Order: sequence, then structure tokens, then C-alpha cells
Amino acid sequence: MLLQRAMIPRFRQACRLKLVPSRLCIQACSTNDSSQLQYPSLAFSGDNSSTKGWRVMGTLLGLGAVLAYHDHRCRAAQESPHLYTREEVRAHSSPETRIWVTLGCEVFDVTEFVDLHPGGPSKLMLAAGGPLEPFWALYAVHNQPHVRELLAQYKVGELSPEDKEPFTLKTSDPYSDDPVRHPALKVNSQRPFNAEPPPELLTENYITPNPIFFTRNHLPVPNLDPETYRLHVVGPPEGQSLSLSLNDLYQFPKHEITVTLQCAGNRRSEMTRFKEVKGLEWNTGAISTARWAGARLCDVLAKAGHQLCETEAHVCFEGLDSDPTGTAYGASIPLARAMDPEAEVLLAYEMNGQPLPRDHGFPVRVVVPGVVGARHVKWLGKVSVEPEESYSHWQRRDYKGFSPSVDWDTVDFDSAPSIQELPVQSAITEPKDGETVQSGEVTIKGYAWSGGGRAVVRVDVSLDGGLTWQVAELDGEEPRPRKAWAWRLWQLQASVPAGKKELNIVCKAVDDSYNVQPDTVAPIWNLRGVLSNAWHRVHVRVAP
Amino acid sequence: MLLQRAMIPRFRQACRLKLVPSRLCIQACSTNDSSQLQYPSLAFSGDNSSTKGWRVMGTLLGLGAVLAYHDHRCRAAQESPHLYTREEVRAHSSPETRIWVTLGCEVFDVTEFVDLHPGGPSKLMLAAGGPLEPFWALYAVHNQPHVRELLAQYKVGELSPEDKEPFTLKTSDPYSDDPVRHPALKVNSQRPFNAEPPPELLTENYITPNPIFFTRNHLPVPNLDPETYRLHVVGPPEGQSLSLSLNDLYQFPKHEITVTLQCAGNRRSEMTRFKEVKGLEWNTGAISTARWAGARLCDVLAKAGHQLCETEAHVCFEGLDSDPTGTAYGASIPLARAMDPEAEVLLAYEMNGQPLPRDHGFPVRVVVPGVVGARHVKWLGKVSVEPEESYSHWQRRDYKGFSPSVDWDTVDFDSAPSIQELPVQSAITEPKDGETVQSGEVTIKGYAWSGGGRAVVRVDVSLDGGLTWQVAELDGEEPRPRKAWAWRLWQLQASVPAGKKELNIVCKAVDDSYNVQPDTVAPIWNLRGVLSNAWHRVHVRVAP
Repeated sequence: MLLQRAMIPRFRQACRLKLVPSRLCIQACSTNDSSQLQYPSLAFSGDNSSTKGWRVMGTLLGLGAVLAYHDHRCRAAQESPHLYTREEVRAHSSPETRIWVTLGCEVFDVTEFVDLHPGGPSKLMLAAGGPLEPFWALYAVHNQPHVRELLAQYKVGELSPEDKEPFTLKTSDPYSDDPVRHPALKVNSQRPFNAEPPPELLTENYITPNPIFFTRNHLPVPNLDPETYRLHVVGPPEGQSLSLSLNDLYQFPKHEITVTLQCAGNRRSEMTRFKEVKGLEWNTGAISTARWAGARLCDVLAKAGHQLCETEAHVCFEGLDSDPTGTAYGASIPLARAMDPEAEVLLAYEMNGQPLPRDHGFPVRVVVPGVVGARHVKWLGKVSVEPEESYSHWQRRDYKGFSPSVDWDTVDFDSAPSIQELPVQSAITEPKDGETVQSGEVTIKGYAWSGGGRAVVRVDVSLDGGLTWQVAELDGEEPRPRKAWAWRLWQLQASVPAGKKELNIVCKAVDDSYNVQPDTVAPIWNLRGVLSNAWHRVHVRVAP
Repeated sequence: MLLQRAMIPRFRQACRLKLVPSRLCIQACSTNDSSQLQYPSLAFSGDNSSTKGWRVMGTLLGLGAVLAYHDHRCRAAQESPHLYTREEVRAHSSPETRIWVTLGCEVFDVTEFVDLHPGGPSKLMLAAGGPLEPFWALYAVHNQPHVRELLAQYKVGELSPEDKEPFTLKTSDPYSDDPVRHPALKVNSQRPFNAEPPPELLTENYITPNPIFFTRNHLPVPNLDPETYRLHVVGPPEGQSLSLSLNDLYQFPKHEITVTLQCAGNRRSEMTRFKEVKGLEWNTGAISTARWAGARLCDVLAKAGHQLCETEAHVCFEGLDSDPTGTAYGASIPLARAMDPEAEVLLAYEMNGQPLPRDHGFPVRVVVPGVVGARHVKWLGKVSVEPEESYSHWQRRDYKGFSPSVDWDTVDFDSAPSIQELPVQSAITEPKDGETVQSGEVTIKGYAWSGGGRAVVRVDVSLDGGLTWQVAELDGEEPRPRKAWAWRLWQLQASVPAGKKELNIVCKAVDDSYNVQPDTVAPIWNLRGVLSNAWHRVHVRVAP
């Protein structure tokens, strides 16, 4: 109680500050009078060269709506402002150096506002030292005059003329043609590009916005021309091979489903903490959810004359991304899943109502609901039905689970099945590990998902490291039976026990086969660091 | 090494003893000259009144072969033997009182032989104080002259004339008509009858012999006449209801599959050790495997005019067992599973090549591969398709999982889905908890299974409580993809680390969705004690 009372004056001060009318005049510049922002980080911004037609379509489909800041116009400066380079702005990204951000050509010192940010300080801190646009583009709530008036209070200057143009990649390495990415993404590897959204953005929306959808590339991103793109579908001996243009694919019935994709390496960093593994250091963000639309794979296979056969067979996918030797990314799934209309495997050409972003497989990728991300082959070039699994490295020498006792000297990749359906999973996205929470009540948020269409039926949360548990509230719609392809977001409003100085917050999910997550990571440790689905643990301090 | 050497003289002594020719003459009696043993414990022995036709059929199907002891004939005693009552024999069931067993009318003191038993001492101890026939009937290897010659060495007398007749139930309670059961079963409840095989028998065979298949009854066992038996299948409004005799059921294509059944309460006793629950004290034996044959439910439903519909529906089953108020046992499964030929749901009338034993649903039960035992309704009387799940107590107010925080004051049964598919499971059957194992090598055996047709792909075993792991060998055939309805038996031959005085043996299984078992039982504890699938742990001492 004493602690709570001590907080009240600070809270009142915050409220007062929000209610104060603009005390400073709004200073703006005239470098850009367009209603479109110049910042190039959003999906499609890197596709300009070959996708003009697509951009028009994307705008029609709603892409434009995300980007548009109709009310925002820079006007000529009233007086000569202080000028800063982008480099100088970047140097101001912590409370110690003060926190600067840019919007258009203006520079703001928002150090005093960070704690007052309605979306929480951590969200605003994602933009520290850089532009606000990529974040405002995701959260349209910012597109209101009073938000910009509020911001104007903190203006400290403008960008130098040479830094008013958007940043572009100008190298000549194999990755030089990769698209420009959203700066919110936490990059685990630049070449190939692998990045995840920060946890506090991840569960902000049930549908992950395309620009921050986690990206797992194995090779450089191909730059494909939708006009000349063809998907080669190998027919059976008695059938016919197909060479499908995008327009051909559109002729199949369009099927639309919400599917969560998760990388087998999601939460690998927790395994690394126990013992070193080979793999990218994913945190909890190698998972995202989108609404995908495309042709059903079963319809396309049937068109080529394929049928379900008695003997086990596999549908092999080949990407149009390739390494310097010409070896393409490849993977396969069992024919039975591919041919089952209820499994809803897609050859997807839309992601959240837009053509696929380049990082997510433009123009066509496979979406295999309930199955590990590695099988959702992007930039799809070829589909064939084979008696054996794909001979690709990624099918046979990667993405498999092993006992903790197996090391690189003893591993026999043929002894383990390739990962298809993933196990039940959950993680805490708020609060963050190491954070200080207020006494009184704490809000805990996260996601939960399971493979194979199995619905998450319960998430248990503990504040004491797993001794006692509370049941979290599952948000969103009830999933369709046997087709729970998408995650559930969850939250728990919990009382912080009086006198507690720290909390060991833990979550664990249960799916409708009543499978649960294992308690600890060490017994599921494996040399590739995949399948990391132990209870997720977050340690926080309680503010005195 | 020292320890191993010390063992050698004892082992040599054992070998010598086995090679010694019969020193005593074989004494026998003439009370029964039949080639059929009288002991009434095997399946069908309780069905005499109404199933004579079935017994003939059962014999044709192989039942007779299990029972037949063609070589064994009691002959007139050469001299007047010592006579004992069954009660006196029962009093000799431990090394302290000496260990007696009976075969036919003869009584044997096998105390000295127990440690020499080729199948291990624990197997023989199951018969201590009682008849050998029920066990020999399971293991035909005993039906050889040299085995009986060996046994004859230990004869100490014969049964009193009044105890030579088989024991029968002669009470008048609702359970008086229940069949007689195999004495190896560990009884958790007599009324209704609930019993499991002891672990050392459970994994002796991939297919569990009918007499020791675990039995989970909720009510008295009905005594049904196969001639008048009818299965009522309610048709849709536009279809036709069916009243099917057994002969009618035989007209559908016969489908045969190997399926493991597991009670939701298997391993409940481990939960009880943590905190009290409501339920029968099952150990690791509420699971068994049989080869089931019958008509596919989808074929029968189709015959009545049922089709898969867009909206979710359920197939409700009603048993012909009922409580004093006339309420029958009931349960349901989703229509989608029932109608899917690949799910192979059966209306089974055969179990391991025999008509169903009464305890297992004679004449017809449901078998739902990959699903909790509670939905495999026995003594099936009625099948209907409903928009909602069965309103049965056992569907709606039982067989559901809850958070450890939920108690009988706070439980809301509507908040949890009824258990259908079960999570991944495994247990150690040898050695037993508390046993002393020899130094050098230890053989660890057990079973592993998962619900929903998911195959077990690996079993990890630890000798040090979970710090380090070894991969066990999986026995038996590779399961069919997506139809791994039956368990895998497994074993590991492990070196006992030198100097170890005790071992904390642990096992955990992984299925092909890479779900794993949780480490500990407390976090999955629930008020009904169901879904107990934490790592199985056995503590043993190492002989010095």
C-alpha cells in the first residue's frame, strides 16, 4: 500500500503533462510535400525495379492505407533550425545520451516522454536513435493531429540536407539485392537475412504486420519478375507436367487461412545458455502469424494428375533461391498431408491481403499449416512427387531432433525423422526479462501455439518459478476443430504478492491432445538447438 | 570386477542345479484325467451360461490352444500324499513363510527355485500361494516335459479333496455375475472391477494376452446373449435407423488393427504421492495392446445414411452396462474422426483373434485408435450422431484436464475440453522401484506410446536422475505413418557406473510431433489425477 501511494504523485504529474496544451509552436520543413513517407523500410519498398504493377495492386489491397499519413505535411521552417546528421541522431538512443527520434526531417528529444508513452516505454524505445515512421506505419493510432502536436513539444532540430534522403543498400555482394527491412526487426544474421520482431511488438497484434513478420532466409533473396514467373509442377508418368504462371495459379479456387509459422530454432538462445549449439540465436520471436491466401496444393497436384497412393510418398519443393553452386533451397512434406483438403496446404501468393513481400517468398511460397517453418518453401520454383523425402540438406541433414547425448561426433542424421509437426509452445512477451515491474498488479502477456492443428486449450502462469499457477485468459476466436493453425495470444492480470522483491514468471501451455511443455531446457537440449519449448521463464524485479 | 567375480560361484551353482537329473519320483493324483485344466480364470470361463456357441467359435479361433496342456495328466498317487487346503497354500507366499504353488491337484514348495526361474524371480512370485495354471496358460514355454520334471522335484503334497474344485463367485450383489479374472491382475477396485497387469508381465509381450489386459469398468459387467444382441444405430432424419445383430455386423468389411488402449488415469498413483486426487490408484499398467477386429464405424454410419457435415457434430455411444437407476455408461467422439476411414474407428467384435472377453465389452465395443480409453465404449448398445457431445457424466464431468490450481471448490468442468487424444507417454517396467540390481550391466525395459497416431520416435533413459541420457532401442515393427496406434516396447542394456550404490533411472519418450514428457508431476497435477505423463522414475540399489 505504501508503495502504491508513493507512485501516485508521479502518475498525477504524467496525467498533467498529457493535458497541457502545446506550449511550443510546431516547426516543420518543406523538403517533402508528398502524402507518402519516404522511409523505405516497409514491404515492397525494395521491389520497385520489377514490381510496379504489383505496387498498384498492393495499394488497392490496402498497402497504401498502412503507409498513408494524409494529414502530415512538412512546411517551410519559420526560423533556422539546428541541423543534425542521422549519425548524430543514432548516438542518442539511451536515457544516458538522451533519446532522440526523427519524423520526416524533424529531430525530437523524447527522453522525458518515454515513460509517458501510452503504449509503454519499451515500444517507443524501439525507435530510439532512428525514425518513427516504420513504427507509426504499423500502429495507425499515431496518425492523429494531437499526437503530432504532442511530439512537436520535443523538437530539437532537423536533419542535415544530406541525410534527408532515405538510406539505400549500395553494395555488390550476393545479398546486395536483398530488400530493405523494417528497423524494428532484431537481426540475428544479415547474410542470409534472419531477424525477429521484438517481443513487445510480437503480441501487439493477433496478425503480425508483414514488415515485422520474422524472416528466416537460408540464401540471398531472389528478385523475381511476376510476369515471367512460372511454377513447374512435375506430373506423374500417366499425367501431365504443368508450367503455371501467376495468372494460372489465380484460376484455382482461392483459399484463405490464418496460419502461424514458427522456425524450428525459435527460443534457441535458451538452449545456448545451457550449452553451445550450432545455429542462429533466436529469442522468442521466430514465430509470427499471417492471413495467407492462394491455391490449395491438393487442387494443383490433382490438376497435374496426382492421386493419393497406398505407398508412402512425399511432395518435394524447390525454391528459386540458390547458393553460388546453384543448389536451391528444398524441403518436402508427406503426400498424404499435401493431398488432404482438410490439411489446407497452400501455394500462397498473398500475405495479409498483399502480394507476398520479397522476404516471404514473392511471388509464391508454400504454407503448410501446423508444420515447422522450414517446409514452407519460399520463392517456389518446382513441385514434384517422389517416393522419398527431399534430398535437400535442409530436409536430411538439418531440422531434426536428437537426444541431449548426441554430439557432432556421434550424430546420425538418418536416425531421426525430419521435423514436420511442432510440439506445443508458449512464451512470455511482457514483461521482459530483467525489467522492473510496479507492485500491486502486473500484466503478463504472451503467445501459445501447437503444431498439427492442435488447439491450445490452456496457458498456466506462475509468479513463483512454477510452485503455484494461475490460468491465463486466451484472447481471440475459438479455433476450428483440428485446424487450429494459428496461435492464441494470452494475458494474465495478477496481483504481485505483498513484500515480493522479485518474481520468477513462468508460462506453460497445454494443447488439445493434452501435451504440455517440458519443465526445463537441459533435457531437451540438442546439438542444433531446435525444438526449444521448455517453460518460458522471465525474471523481474518489483519496484519498491 | 571384484563384485562380478564374487557372483560367479552362485551362478555356477545355479547352472549345476538345473543340470541335475530328477532325483525324486514324480508323484501325481487321479482326480482329473482331462486334458483341459479346471482353473477358471481365463477369459470366457465366466460366460458358460449363455455363450456355448461362442466357446466353440473361440476354440476354433485359437482360445483352445492357449488352454491346452495335452501332456499333463494326473495319475493315481503311488503313496498317500500330505494334503493341504488352498488356504494353507495361500499362507505360503513369501520367502519367510516359504513359497508354495499348485499345479492341478499338486502342491509344490518352490522357495529354492525362485531365484533360478529363467523368466526371473519376480514372474514366479506372481503365482506365490496360488495356482500356476493362469501364468502357464500365458506362457506356453512351460508346456514341456522337462519343465514338469523340474517342478516335480519340489512337490510337497496335494490339495485336500474339498479344494480340488475350482473356486466360483457365489454372492448375490450386482457384481455377482462379473466374470472371474486372472489372478495376476493387480486389483484397484473389485466393484466395479478395475485392475492392471503387473509391470513385469506388461511388456513381456507386444500384444497383451487377453486375460491380463488392463480392465477399466465403471459398472457391473452385463451378461449379454449374442443371439439376441442388437446394436441400435440412430439414422439421420432423411436416413434409416439400423438394428444390427452380430451377423449383420459381420456383413460389413472386417477391419483388423493393433491398438494400444490407455486409461486417462494411468500412473495416477504418482500424482497421489504429490497430493491427493480423486480416482483409482493406477500404477503404470492401465495400458495394454491388442489386435482388434470388427466393422469400421464409418461404414456403419454411412449405411445408416450419415455424412460428414460442415458443422461440428459428435458420435455418441451408449453401453449396455447401467447403474441401479438405469443410467448407462456413455461417451462421444467428434463425427470427423468417426467418419474418417483413415482414423480406423472400429466397432470391434474380436480381440486377439477371439470374441471379446466379457470384461472387454462382449459382444461389441468401440475402439478409437489414438484416443483415451474412456471413449472406447464397451457392451455397445446405441450409436447416434448429435450436434453436442454426449451428455454422459463421463464425457462432461470427468476425463478432463485442469490446472494444478483448480480444486473441487473451483472446478468448472465446462471450461476444459474432454480428453480425446492422449499426450506422449512412457514408463519403465524393469527393474522395479526399490529393486536391487547387479553391478556390471543393467537391462532396462519399458513401453512408450503417444495419442493421435503419432509414432514414438525416441526414448531417452537416464541412470542419474536426468543429468545424462542414453537412447533406448525400440523393438518391433515401424508403425504406419500417421497411424501409430500401438505402443513401442523398448529396452536399454546399460553399464552400471563403477562404485554406484544406487541408480535413479528415468525414461522419457519423444513422438513424431516432437512432443516430450514433462520433467515432473507436480506442475501437471490435477484434481482427478488424469494425464499423468511426467518422466517415469525408478530408484534401485546396486548389489555390492
